[in-house]
Amino acid sequence: MSIITCKAAIAWEAGKDLVVEDIQVLPPGPEEVRLKVDYTGVCHTDAYMLNGHDSEGKFPVVAGHEGAGVVESVGSQVTDVKVGDHVIPLYTAECKECKFCKSGKTNLCQRVRSTQGQGVMPDGTVRFKCRGQDIYHFMGCSTFSQYTVVSKHSVVAVSKEAPKEKACLLGCGITTGYGAATKQQHIKGSQVAIFGVGCVGLAAIQGAKAGGATRIIAIDTNNKKESFAKQHGATDFINPLEIKDKSIQEHLVEITDGGLDYTFDCTGNVGVMRSALEACHKGWGESIIIGVAPAGKEISTRPFQLVTGRVWKGSAFGGVKGKSELPGIVLDYLNKKLDVDSFHTHSRPLAEINEAFHDMHGGDCIRCVVDMK
Amino acid sequence: MSIITCKAAIAWEAGKDLVVEDIQVLPPGPEEVRLKVDYTGVCHTDAYMLNGHDSEGKFPVVAGHEGAGVVESVGSQVTDVKVGDHVIPLYTAECKECKFCKSGKTNLCQRVRSTQGQGVMPDGTVRFKCRGQDIYHFMGCSTFSQYTVVSKHSVVAVSKEAPKEKACLLGCGITTGYGAATKQQHIKGSQVAIFGVGCVGLAAIQGAKAGGATRIIAIDTNNKKESFAKQHGATDFINPLEIKDKSIQEHLVEITDGGLDYTFDCTGNVGVMRSALEACHKGWGESIIIGVAPAGKEISTRPFQLVTGRVWKGSAFGGVKGKSELPGIVLDYLNKKLDVDSFHTHSRPLAEINEAFHDMHGGDCIRCVVDMK
Repeated sequence: MSIITCKAAIAWEAGKDLVVEDIQVLPPGPEEVRLKVDYTGVCHTDAYMLNGHDSEGKFPVVAGHEGAGVVESVGSQVTDVKVGDHVIPLYTAECKECKFCKSGKTNLCQRVRSTQGQGVMPDGTVRFKCRGQDIYHFMGCSTFSQYTVVSKHSVVAVSKEAPKEKACLLGCGITTGYGAATKQQHIKGSQVAIFGVGCVGLAAIQGAKAGGATRIIAIDTNNKKESFAKQHGATDFINPLEIKDKSIQEHLVEITDGGLDYTFDCTGNVGVMRSALEACHKGWGESIIIGVAPAGKEISTRPFQLVTGRVWKGSAFGGVKGKSELPGIVLDYLNKKLDVDSFHTHSRPLAEINEAFHDMHGGDCIRCVVDMK
Repeated sequence: MSIITCKAAIAWEAGKDLVVEDIQVLPPGPEEVRLKVDYTGVCHTDAYMLNGHDSEGKFPVVAGHEGAGVVESVGSQVTDVKVGDHVIPLYTAECKECKFCKSGKTNLCQRVRSTQGQGVMPDGTVRFKCRGQDIYHFMGCSTFSQYTVVSKHSVVAVSKEAPKEKACLLGCGITTGYGAATKQQHIKGSQVAIFGVGCVGLAAIQGAKAGGATRIIAIDTNNKKESFAKQHGATDFINPLEIKDKSIQEHLVEITDGGLDYTFDCTGNVGVMRSALEACHKGWGESIIIGVAPAGKEISTRPFQLVTGRVWKGSAFGGVKGKSELPGIVLDYLNKKLDVDSFHTHSRPLAEINEAFHDMHGGDCIRCVVDMK
């Protein structure tokens, strides 16, 4: 296996545009997989890191964590995937051997967690070089390169029938929302509110519907999101800026005869997280934080909210175990149980990746997919 | 049924000593029960209200909510209890008919909740008069009177074999801690930390032991509590003031290989509540708030704590349904499955009820029981 030279979008420093240039991608180590990235989504988590707000972002870096591609080569210790497999990189790894994987209680495998957080491979080194410099990895994926190297624990093979320009979106946003909702035990027949109608929120709406929720209230400050929300299964849409003389949580408690059974924060805003908790029904309502808050921000509420039966919890990557469960979610997509196509609202070639980030912030964009060819 | 004149400890205004004097106790209404109170505990919740910090405390008032007694008379619509029954008043009612009772998810019956919070009976009036003045009820119980009137939903008959000077403690503190621990689904084989070794904390220790927890770490700033804690089942005792150079949560995560499976706050201190949450194991640890915080105080943490799998919840009256479950807990006591006797460390006659509050604040007191004779 030789070094591959290809194009990648490199972030040389925080807050600056990405620069597409030639990068050298080293061969995979014994427990690593090198893959050709065909498509990648751009996500708010990438933008957040690229702006210098994520302590796990080390520059220069190849960002991107929502991709789909094909295995190009594998290390000697790799058995789960083989050359030619269609794969999705997993920023939440699954080794099936650590205390976390074996617990049966969480998808938060810790096998490669600490090195992933440092922007390096599990052996402490990097597989990218550009202009003679080491380039860091991001979230164990680095999908903003035409070729990337990931740990064998951080990649899963999926059906070859799934078009990769859609399947890439299952690498983060859609799975995060869909999983978070479908994994709630008692969602059938429940009243649910989803705060924030972006990619994650829309997927949570779909998950709530798939789970059998009878009322799904979508909440967003942008009225353009109403049609998206209802198209995916929301029964109600509320713009909290249009609620006068009371808080959104007070309004929700009023119109739902006491509050929601489940609420999901898909905004990352800690004030919204509080509203989502306090909109829960006394005695049993559960609020699930999915959004990622800016560093240093804290959530608060009166403890009485919890003493009287509300539950505050969270979910990462939708609680989905990448190796065990993501292939099934891809099948849900192929079987039309899960709509992914309509999330793909914008497309860009790699040369326009900076514009893809601008697209993302537009109100009419759910996901912009970057074609890496 | 006639008016009964008896002794009661009346709080005429916030922050002043109680005054024992003659009170007129009106007959019970059709859906009410009048009972002779034989014994009552004094609890921090009483002290908190009497000091004027509880918005539900209206003066003048008969406080007290942890009692045991005998039914003296019942209204025409009362079928659950009869004259002569040994009973425990329930500050958390159970009507078995409201949305909450029927949900199967909570013990927080709302049937009499709003009037209870206003210090009156469900018909909006009071049953106490003193010196010609109406005297308010408290928590639907008012056990600081030799006779009191409660809603039929707020009282349960228990075994006559249980000595009332002990059984009264099952009306609040012990059940609150014991129930909160025993009701956690996966406590068997778990590592647990209990913050605060008072009545509630000790009962939570017992509940954790009864549930099969393998490690039970008791935490208190008062080293005198170590022997109490270990006597009730704690395997470890930590004084957080003796932990140097790191927080108690960091210390706990270190000594438990990643954190606790369950933590219980039995202090009411919002800083401790945060420590209890953050001492939980990533991926699955659950923190249960039992303590009642001062008005206006808020809990805070980074949302990342929840996104990475910790769960923040709470419990009132231990999640125990008073009518359905408290008689069984009394049997647990009689069958020596639950130790109640050792909680009864101090005794006072009614005439010394103010001293009972002083006792409570002493480090060697778990519960002071007031003999109402």
